[in-house]
Amino acid sequence: MPDIYRQYVDIAKQLEKGYHDVQDMEFTVERGKLWILQTRNGKRTAKAAIKIAVDMYREGIITKEEAINQVDPYSVYQVLLPCFNPDKVKHSHKVSKGVNASPGAAVGKIVFDTEEAARRGEAGEKVILVRIETCPDDIHGMAVSQGVLTLRGGATSHAAVVAKGMGKPCVSGCEDLIIDLAKETITCSDGTVFHKDDIISLDGGTGEVMEGAIEMVQAGLDEDFETFFSWVDEIKELHVEANADTPKDIENAKKFGAEGVGLCRTEHMFMDPDRLPWVQKMIIAGTTEARKEALSHLLPMQYSDFYSMFKALGDKPLTVRLLDPPLHEFLPSKIELVEKVATKKALGQNYSEDEKLLEIVENLSESNPMMGLRGCRLGLTYPEINEMQVRAIFEACCDLTKEGHHIQPWIMIPLIGHINELKTAKATLVSVAEQVMNEKGIRVDYKFGTMIEIPRAALTAKEVATEAEFFSYGTNDLTQMTFGYSRDDAEGKFLKNYVEQKILPTNPFVTLDVNGVGRLIEMSINEGKEVNSSLVGGICGEHGGDPDSVKYAHKIGLNYVSCSPFRIPQAKLAAAQAAIASPRKQLASV
Amino acid sequence: MPDIYRQYVDIAKQLEKGYHDVQDMEFTVERGKLWILQTRNGKRTAKAAIKIAVDMYREGIITKEEAINQVDPYSVYQVLLPCFNPDKVKHSHKVSKGVNASPGAAVGKIVFDTEEAARRGEAGEKVILVRIETCPDDIHGMAVSQGVLTLRGGATSHAAVVAKGMGKPCVSGCEDLIIDLAKETITCSDGTVFHKDDIISLDGGTGEVMEGAIEMVQAGLDEDFETFFSWVDEIKELHVEANADTPKDIENAKKFGAEGVGLCRTEHMFMDPDRLPWVQKMIIAGTTEARKEALSHLLPMQYSDFYSMFKALGDKPLTVRLLDPPLHEFLPSKIELVEKVATKKALGQNYSEDEKLLEIVENLSESNPMMGLRGCRLGLTYPEINEMQVRAIFEACCDLTKEGHHIQPWIMIPLIGHINELKTAKATLVSVAEQVMNEKGIRVDYKFGTMIEIPRAALTAKEVATEAEFFSYGTNDLTQMTFGYSRDDAEGKFLKNYVEQKILPTNPFVTLDVNGVGRLIEMSINEGKEVNSSLVGGICGEHGGDPDSVKYAHKIGLNYVSCSPFRIPQAKLAAAQAAIASPRKQLASV
Repeated sequence: MPDIYRQYVDIAKQLEKGYHDVQDMEFTVERGKLWILQTRNGKRTAKAAIKIAVDMYREGIITKEEAINQVDPYSVYQVLLPCFNPDKVKHSHKVSKGVNASPGAAVGKIVFDTEEAARRGEAGEKVILVRIETCPDDIHGMAVSQGVLTLRGGATSHAAVVAKGMGKPCVSGCEDLIIDLAKETITCSDGTVFHKDDIISLDGGTGEVMEGAIEMVQAGLDEDFETFFSWVDEIKELHVEANADTPKDIENAKKFGAEGVGLCRTEHMFMDPDRLPWVQKMIIAGTTEARKEALSHLLPMQYSDFYSMFKALGDKPLTVRLLDPPLHEFLPSKIELVEKVATKKALGQNYSEDEKLLEIVENLSESNPMMGLRGCRLGLTYPEINEMQVRAIFEACCDLTKEGHHIQPWIMIPLIGHINELKTAKATLVSVAEQVMNEKGIRVDYKFGTMIEIPRAALTAKEVATEAEFFSYGTNDLTQMTFGYSRDDAEGKFLKNYVEQKILPTNPFVTLDVNGVGRLIEMSINEGKEVNSSLVGGICGEHGGDPDSVKYAHKIGLNYVSCSPFRIPQAKLAAAQAAIASPRKQLASV
Repeated sequence: MPDIYRQYVDIAKQLEKGYHDVQDMEFTVERGKLWILQTRNGKRTAKAAIKIAVDMYREGIITKEEAINQVDPYSVYQVLLPCFNPDKVKHSHKVSKGVNASPGAAVGKIVFDTEEAARRGEAGEKVILVRIETCPDDIHGMAVSQGVLTLRGGATSHAAVVAKGMGKPCVSGCEDLIIDLAKETITCSDGTVFHKDDIISLDGGTGEVMEGAIEMVQAGLDEDFETFFSWVDEIKELHVEANADTPKDIENAKKFGAEGVGLCRTEHMFMDPDRLPWVQKMIIAGTTEARKEALSHLLPMQYSDFYSMFKALGDKPLTVRLLDPPLHEFLPSKIELVEKVATKKALGQNYSEDEKLLEIVENLSESNPMMGLRGCRLGLTYPEINEMQVRAIFEACCDLTKEGHHIQPWIMIPLIGHINELKTAKATLVSVAEQVMNEKGIRVDYKFGTMIEIPRAALTAKEVATEAEFFSYGTNDLTQMTFGYSRDDAEGKFLKNYVEQKILPTNPFVTLDVNGVGRLIEMSINEGKEVNSSLVGGICGEHGGDPDSVKYAHKIGLNYVSCSPFRIPQAKLAAAQAAIASPRKQLASV
């Protein structure tokens, strides 16, 4: 029926032109007549969507703006990260479903011990690190594993944040699994038992854990991707930066198109096996003298980190957050020490060294470390820590400036709740910065700002903004405090249930809660600008990579968002879509 | 010089009349002439201040309002609780200074073990319970000790809250002391070592710990006190209620003039040694069935508590908070179990029972329990707990109503952050209440409200107020979340330093932070009233007994405050002073 065929092709072209999108059409031919029954926009993978959008623009069917609106930002990560073949997933044996903490697909042998994972991963073996929960000690094991599976935690717990930063698949909060560390087994709720070295597959995009090796589809960027994102860059108004903690992260960030680093967490630099001993010495130091001595060994290490990072990033802003986590995170686990002391005691062995360490760990241990001695409270209690970090930053920046590099250091103080904390910390910072610049005989321009992650800081923004050039919203912690949800506990314990029962519309650690947390952000950025019209505002929590949250950031007039490197494209796309929906008149320059 | 004397008496009378207060005058007589050099209001103890105020009113020198303004509310507790002889304190050997967590003076022998303190205290011995920190397990030991000393915690940590409720002296957060539980010694920073059974003195009003037995001055109420507080009751506008958890607490509350119970914490009823096993069975129950079975044993116990409390309080409101704390608070300590298992393992003993319990405790343990599975999150995860509690309340209330008692049950849901939590919890509550009232064939009027202690609840008050008849501000938790300060950690770790360094003007757990926490309270009560004009608001955190915070509560239009029984007089006095300073036109009836 060549006539019918020609007629169909004409109508199809017309429909695609009319709907400005690829159509999925239903038709029938009855008694020699063509009937079009239904048409709707065609479903497609992210890769196909980008190709279609670029093609349709080139064919003159749609505008750039329409092309941008055709691609779902939530799907973009599929182009950047390996995925499982959906057909194989359909027929797989699913043994658990946790929180989709960091997307991507991973296949490997189960390993429970971090040291073992580090050793075997380094040697090229494909392993999956399985832990109750992860802590900073586990980072080197995570770095060389294919993926990470944890029983505790959620979308912003330690494992999730670190895995996202590494672009590594992670499923967290599989509270239905039972791990026996002594026997090295995992027992699933359906009775399946896995032993060490059994192979499993993790889908970090869905949170699914599957038995055996599921077939993967590799990722790959192409010319269409480049073209499409050049349009996105043209149209979006928000700056999209990366969370990057090491020189290696910076390379990753640049690859994904970061326009700066919105969050450099200095504590991650401390976790290297050759640095940790000095960090521990600093922590257990009984006197300021001893603490300064330990810090003096860390100074050259931090200097070289900052030197490489600033150099690699070039003239884009690099925002350094001073030391943030509770100090006991750097020390051995209290439980393990208690166990060791009790065992040695029972066996009549000498345990005095372990007991001494236990006493220190006990003194530093807290009932609720998230709300304890951390963030600026650390730097105000032990100013010499901030002094060392600021010295390292400014020595690196002075040297780079001397060498002719143009750099943009932004420095920020975490966990401010009261203006006086900021004032006091700033005084230390300015005096060290001046001292270093005088020593080096060169000036470096820098910005000084604060994280807004404590509700009280947001509520008193009018005071805080008088001392800060920028507000960097740490939305993970701000969500944590505004809801009173510990991110390490809530997701595994009750949040999944809340979302399933529709008590909450969505997980607030994944998509920003507009009514509560958002209200604090809007109030504070507006009130901050009343007293400081050049105040810059941005989001550096993981919400900075969540498309809906990015759109909200655009809407309320923030200047930038910052997220894990591989989420930059999706954040940029969301920013562009928001700019198309409601262009802003004027943007304060970042 | 009888003339000079007469002249002096005349001038003195004139000055006291003029200044409307007792005068402390300096004078000299030179060459037969009287010179008055200086005069100022005389310093006095609380007892004297009350006597002077009453006398001056009776003599017609001052008005009732002036009498009320003459007494410092912060000093009133001295009249109600035993104090040390100040001269003896001056010459005492002070060995530490912690947080003045609960006022009053205590002298006794050092005891480290709760069971031992309970046994010896019960037998009439004067002991001071010394602990690293206290937990609900320690309550029976605290109840019969003279006072409590802890190394950790602050003004609103467990030890402080419980001790205040008992009217028992407590010094917390003496982080400079080193306790060796094995040797049963305390080593002070000046090198003094105390052994078990050594006598120490605690001043809960100043936080001082002294060696030996310091002489005490006993408290005693007199007629002047009664008269003075009858004026206070006439003039104040705020209702002042008590935090009371047991029938015994109610008697105490009534003695100190409580106008209701603003906070009855049901979990304290669970700590009795004959109840705890059932509570533990409820917690470790693997199934809903098993949980209901355990709860059925708790029902008659809760019924009898509520029956006695409502009956004792009569026609005043009794506000019951449904179960709030994390469940693991009712279980043995994880550390102790780890120790036990390790020891038994090393010695080749059978440890399977302990290991099983440890597994359960581990599953329930959280990184930050304050922000974990507690409050309404518990009742929404295990609705049968709330169902049992509501049934107990309504069975008691129906029976009392049948017996002709007029009672006022107010029921509140703790830790709300989202309107849907309140809606869901309320649906359960209403259905159980209706069921019980139908079974009993009688109606009981009740109010349903919510705690406001999560910043998000305050920020979304317009939504929350549509489902609540009252907002009870849990200012301890609200301060905790708004500042991001764990009350168990912050005071010992950095808050003392913050206050000393003047980074904070005052400890926000003691006096309400007006700019941050207060802003949330004001915003939310005002916005709540916009949608629900009959909304009642009150404070039930310990700030409800802090005079400055009470004045603030009056100022922003709250209806009531609720605090530990012995703080009621000072709260009433502050409320009267606030009413004198700025009387309110109209008060929504409580």
